[in-house]
Amino acid sequence: MTNLDISPAGVLPPQGAVGQGPGESGVGIVRGGDYTSRPNDRGKWVGMNDDALLLKQIQGPRDLAQLDAAGRTALARALRARICEVVSRNGGHFGSNLGVVELTIALHTVFDSPRDRIVWDVSHQCYAHKLLTGRDAEFDTLRTYGGLSGFCHKGESVHDTAFAGHAGTATSIALGIARGHEALGQGDRRTVAVVGDASVVSGMTLEALNHAGWLGSRVLIILNDNGMSISFPVGGLHRTLTDVRGTGTAESNPYAPRPDDHAPATPGDVRAFFEGMGLRYEGPVWGHDAEALIATLARVKDADGPVLLHVHTRKGHGWDQAIDDPITWHAAKGFMPRVCAPESGANGAGANGAGANGAARPAAALPAAAKRPSWTQAFSSALLDLAAEDPALVAITAAMPGGTGLDAFARTFPARCFDAGIAEQHATGFASGLSVAGLKPVLAIYSTFIQRGYDQVVHDVAIQGNPLVLAMDRGGLVGDDGVTHQGLFDVAFLRCIPDVVLAAPSDEQTLRAMLRWAKDSGRIVALRWPRDTVPAPNASSAAPIEPGRGVVVAGGEGDVAFFAYGAMVEHALAARARLAGLGVTATVADARFAKPVDVDLLVELLAAHELVVTVEDHAVQGGFGSACLQAALERRPDLVGRLRLAGVPDAFVHHGARPLQLRDAGLDADGLVEHVRARLPMPSLA
Amino acid sequence: MTNLDISPAGVLPPQGAVGQGPGESGVGIVRGGDYTSRPNDRGKWVGMNDDALLLKQIQGPRDLAQLDAAGRTALARALRARICEVVSRNGGHFGSNLGVVELTIALHTVFDSPRDRIVWDVSHQCYAHKLLTGRDAEFDTLRTYGGLSGFCHKGESVHDTAFAGHAGTATSIALGIARGHEALGQGDRRTVAVVGDASVVSGMTLEALNHAGWLGSRVLIILNDNGMSISFPVGGLHRTLTDVRGTGTAESNPYAPRPDDHAPATPGDVRAFFEGMGLRYEGPVWGHDAEALIATLARVKDADGPVLLHVHTRKGHGWDQAIDDPITWHAAKGFMPRVCAPESGANGAGANGAGANGAARPAAALPAAAKRPSWTQAFSSALLDLAAEDPALVAITAAMPGGTGLDAFARTFPARCFDAGIAEQHATGFASGLSVAGLKPVLAIYSTFIQRGYDQVVHDVAIQGNPLVLAMDRGGLVGDDGVTHQGLFDVAFLRCIPDVVLAAPSDEQTLRAMLRWAKDSGRIVALRWPRDTVPAPNASSAAPIEPGRGVVVAGGEGDVAFFAYGAMVEHALAARARLAGLGVTATVADARFAKPVDVDLLVELLAAHELVVTVEDHAVQGGFGSACLQAALERRPDLVGRLRLAGVPDAFVHHGARPLQLRDAGLDADGLVEHVRARLPMPSLA
Repeated sequence: MTNLDISPAGVLPPQGAVGQGPGESGVGIVRGGDYTSRPNDRGKWVGMNDDALLLKQIQGPRDLAQLDAAGRTALARALRARICEVVSRNGGHFGSNLGVVELTIALHTVFDSPRDRIVWDVSHQCYAHKLLTGRDAEFDTLRTYGGLSGFCHKGESVHDTAFAGHAGTATSIALGIARGHEALGQGDRRTVAVVGDASVVSGMTLEALNHAGWLGSRVLIILNDNGMSISFPVGGLHRTLTDVRGTGTAESNPYAPRPDDHAPATPGDVRAFFEGMGLRYEGPVWGHDAEALIATLARVKDADGPVLLHVHTRKGHGWDQAIDDPITWHAAKGFMPRVCAPESGANGAGANGAGANGAARPAAALPAAAKRPSWTQAFSSALLDLAAEDPALVAITAAMPGGTGLDAFARTFPARCFDAGIAEQHATGFASGLSVAGLKPVLAIYSTFIQRGYDQVVHDVAIQGNPLVLAMDRGGLVGDDGVTHQGLFDVAFLRCIPDVVLAAPSDEQTLRAMLRWAKDSGRIVALRWPRDTVPAPNASSAAPIEPGRGVVVAGGEGDVAFFAYGAMVEHALAARARLAGLGVTATVADARFAKPVDVDLLVELLAAHELVVTVEDHAVQGGFGSACLQAALERRPDLVGRLRLAGVPDAFVHHGARPLQLRDAGLDADGLVEHVRARLPMPSLA
Repeated sequence: MTNLDISPAGVLPPQGAVGQGPGESGVGIVRGGDYTSRPNDRGKWVGMNDDALLLKQIQGPRDLAQLDAAGRTALARALRARICEVVSRNGGHFGSNLGVVELTIALHTVFDSPRDRIVWDVSHQCYAHKLLTGRDAEFDTLRTYGGLSGFCHKGESVHDTAFAGHAGTATSIALGIARGHEALGQGDRRTVAVVGDASVVSGMTLEALNHAGWLGSRVLIILNDNGMSISFPVGGLHRTLTDVRGTGTAESNPYAPRPDDHAPATPGDVRAFFEGMGLRYEGPVWGHDAEALIATLARVKDADGPVLLHVHTRKGHGWDQAIDDPITWHAAKGFMPRVCAPESGANGAGANGAGANGAARPAAALPAAAKRPSWTQAFSSALLDLAAEDPALVAITAAMPGGTGLDAFARTFPARCFDAGIAEQHATGFASGLSVAGLKPVLAIYSTFIQRGYDQVVHDVAIQGNPLVLAMDRGGLVGDDGVTHQGLFDVAFLRCIPDVVLAAPSDEQTLRAMLRWAKDSGRIVALRWPRDTVPAPNASSAAPIEPGRGVVVAGGEGDVAFFAYGAMVEHALAARARLAGLGVTATVADARFAKPVDVDLLVELLAAHELVVTVEDHAVQGGFGSACLQAALERRPDLVGRLRLAGVPDAFVHHGARPLQLRDAGLDADGLVEHVRARLPMPSLA
């Protein structure tokens, strides 16, 4: 049985009933339609109920005007059913999307998109928005290669104001648009940012709120307060919001500091905080009462200045399990087996939900995953083992304890794990401070998110010379999460910084050895690994870690050598096997370090092979290969012409399974063979 | 006559007298000592008065314990006199340093540095701290090559917890240290962050405050509220603070939005804002009453959790002109002609105060500056001319209207100029929003500060494809501001981003043409220029701007070619002249674009010369030369071995005049000749 909460009673608590916590929502578990639909041979869905037919009639947001309250209630049911159906099949963000169904209906009822602009922060909660803006038919392709993005995407619809995958950006963009409209004499156009309670404390949002309160432009900022981020939210302001909500997630938060004696905050405290920034504060209102939301939005729409509207929503609203366990259900897949079985192979790397790599998964979900652990799991386990030996080791995350693999560490060593919230700038500076105090901090972060802490890596870590390990997950092509989450720039933006060591493991044993070396090195070391499973051990495992020293893992002489960085060693070995079948002998070396590059080994390879191909899961512009090229030029300009660089071409890479992205970038075994074929004309390859 | 306010009556208004604005402080203009001191031939100062002798007796902060209230008053006088004397001679931050004299005395009286840690945000206000921590004798070398830094510097003293030049970092670092001390069982050590009212609204600080309020560690955050940043501060929170101060700087702020009808904020509103983040709030207290400060600090020192202590100070306290005109006097030089005449040549590039390039200067200051304008002034003038033609052009700064040259634009087109405050993340996102609305935004920012907006350039500008001009000042070696302000990484961290065009002008005419081209290009274009004067026009001026096209400005064939980026064309031309004297013929080409590189021109140069040297005022790791190398390898691997890269070596560069920094990096004419001599063995160069 599914437990889709679709009764009107279930979705419409009385206004003001904002205190419902997990487990209190078990009303109205009534099935309202036939969800045993399945695609027919033309890919269309059959077995559609009346709600679904209603959804089909909504070709664009203006069609919402024809609905009355009952129609909106039916539409909310239909949106939830459609979201459940497709997310169960394709994977994707779940709880956050169910939580904004009524809000999305209300926004598109009151505002006139795209003339009015709605900017969804992070935008992983945009599924209802997609369905109401003409994308119901394509919604089956959600998060598939060539299909709809899991985030807003300007290329998909004029209703998508911004691609957004990083949290906290919407208020800035919306404020810019609002001020721009005013400057262009289009002051009648309205601009709305929808921002989650975890995003609202990101530095960028706080900066934007402060500027909005000063600038006075007419912008509506909706604080979508569901009391949750991807994981438990943190921060003093969160505690204030929680007091007012009364849901008390702080109590069950493993990262919560010891209870203090602070007096519970009141709604007036929340108001005072935002008014202190110069904003008009409205709310809180219950976000699952579409009628109340519409009335409120209509009232504040034309306010003469910035308004913060505080809306209480419930992550997973309409799906009890998701309410009870919002972290597991942040992203989900395969939870409606009666609707559709997971596609074969869909549990491979890159096809999972956003939080799936290392995060807990919905229970009755997929068949057992591949036997090898993910890189995230390998890091998680390695960190735990090192932490058991070394009490000085501490770890920091910016709101991604699950995604980065810190969750196990946090459970075992809660006093040594710090979740700074969506606050990468601060998280990096805080880690630097821990280093000053004499601890050994490991900042576990996605490659794409350390971009937020870039200045802090330069200014607060490297210039200070404060030892730190940057453990970068999602370094490389990230699969379905798509363009905003690609980890393709870290080598380029870190290698220009003096005193930063860059390394990447090629297998699990090397990851363990590198992490151990890095934490004890007294240096600033940035490690990276991709969103993928760990490959089989290679010959690199046996060699000890020495800074700036790579390892030959196969061959040593021959026609061509691959000088591969990190996880790409696996693909280079596969290419070597294929080349052998073509009569070409190849050497594979694990470079291990992108800074300092092992220039001795590189020169040896150049001397012994007609062609040396650097291989990296990173933008080819300025990355590992570029570093090798510079190093080789300095040492042996006479040989440098033998080098070729294989990396991700200079264009943004959109979503799709990671193997497909690697293929498109020419970085899988076939692609690497092509690199050789194109540049080393030999009879056997003709 | 100097107007150093040194009487006790002048420095000690009654506690709570926080409303004194500019012009109200004209009491106690009494000269208190002999300031006609001058260095003797051993570099020691003679003509010292009693106060100065007192200062000499303070060998370290523990010596403060022997002082009574009268002693502290005398010490405050001595510190001010010493700061005035050295800043007048060497240049440096002025108003902010005078504003924290009593606070510094109080901090070092109550806390036990370095066992207790004091973290100065930005740290350009650390002069009194330097003088009290054993650096009085070296203080004459302030901001000189090889001398004391103008900021805190870990290499100078154990009392300097962090190098800091970027605003907003201290709270994160301090929180990390405090938590680290607790983790290591050193909870009796205290940690203090001193943060200005402009820094407190930076995203990083707000993130840190929110985390502090959650974490509960014992950290003291002192809000040094002087109602000013480098320029007028902005933001709704600033308005709240200003209401409570009652100084009303908002009224005279040219970027202030139209007056609104908001009710003036109360001290309770300030309290509520910080309490909303979970902090205990104390204050406000008057920051020029050392005794009251000491009592307050002693009271909150052992509080069981994070405390925000709100201190009202007055920028320039003790120097009337600096109180009346705090922007001009933010950084100053040469204002005490009776003390010491400016050194000859001291008004050259890089020897000025931090705000001197393009910013207003104290009146009776230096002789007329060099005839050529600074790059900042050239940009300022070009932007103004373009804006007069194109009403869609708008400009954005992050709290640096003077430094970036936007001040003229802001005066002429106030409605089209936006100061986002110290909020680079938001400023970049906001600019992107203006672009969405259909305007042509120019984000004027220092190279080092766009590091704070890096993720936003990737995520909110480039991925969105929102056209934007990034006008980066201080791109390159920045002179006296030193290591935290170097603009040496921008090409490396921007060139990996798809769809971003990188260009740099080599003279003023090219700057104008590039800016015009960039704003109309519909693309994302990042321009850069250094902190220097604009060189004489070169032959590049005549050629129209075409993306990815460089220009040969001298020669065309010969022994060696320089392929120079931006302002380095001037130095390449100078090297060419010197090489001619050595019998070596050199070509100089203005590359103009670092992305896309003019690979056609580069290959022509490689074909026609034995040696081609790329020249850039940027880290050699991953910069312009690296881009050229990649482009050349792809096109002509057979010729790529002829290329050599001249750029800033891979190490942090500390303060010193820009010509010295260029010399040390091997980038002046002599250095470039050496590059040729080392790599092109020819009889004439033997």
